[in-house]
Amino acid sequence: MIVSNGTIIGRGHNRRVQKGSPILHGEMDALENAGRRPAAVYQGATLYTTLSPCAMCSGAILLYGIRRVIIGENENFLGEEELLRSRGVTLEVRQDSRCIRLLTGFIRTHPELWNEDIGV
Amino acid sequence: MIVSNGTIIGRGHNRRVQKGSPILHGEMDALENAGRRPAAVYQGATLYTTLSPCAMCSGAILLYGIRRVIIGENENFLGEEELLRSRGVTLEVRQDSRCIRLLTGFIRTHPELWNEDIGV
Repeated sequence: MIVSNGTIIGRGHNRRVQKGSPILHGEMDALENAGRRPAAVYQGATLYTTLSPCAMCSGAILLYGIRRVIIGENENFLGEEELLRSRGVTLEVRQDSRCIRLLTGFIRTHPELWNEDIGV
Repeated sequence: MIVSNGTIIGRGHNRRVQKGSPILHGEMDALENAGRRPAAVYQGATLYTTLSPCAMCSGAILLYGIRRVIIGENENFLGEEELLRSRGVTLEVRQDSRCIRLLTGFIRTHPELWNEDIGV
């Protein structure tokens, strides 16, 4: 979910199964739904993610210069947080129990999808 | 364009204008068109790009473990080549005059699109 000036400009969910897409992680889907925006909108926006952003989504954050990312949890998967921090992105990791439960449950019930997605 | 075992499994073009998409760079479109594949396919594939891959596309390369990228040119834009090399990706930069001409012409005729895309 991308928030700009207190307004949600893009929501997203992983669409790997629903659209057969290897690129529509939740973050990417949110960007796609936000659509083409002036650079300043992204640069002033905050991205909210359930899980720590993977390399692809972190790269998108860097491309668009999003400066602040609120991360639900990074216990089930630690993405490119170090890279993002090294480029000046402010991260807040909440370790929210609802996010952890959501991901833990998904990984337990769909290990084949989880492993497909992270390339194990 | 993604090639696996001598076969093109995904072609792509930038679709920012055509689909109003902020995420469909040529590399991402090629991944999307390749669809869901076993991890080993990406890891053994070669990605061919016209231009040096930006942060988003480089992140996708890292996510899927693509080990070899052939880059048409990096004179008009230098992407995250250093990051990719530091993660073990083999890059070949061709400085192909056709790629350079293509991008130079595009930037000259559509500076507003070029600047929108790279967030200037």
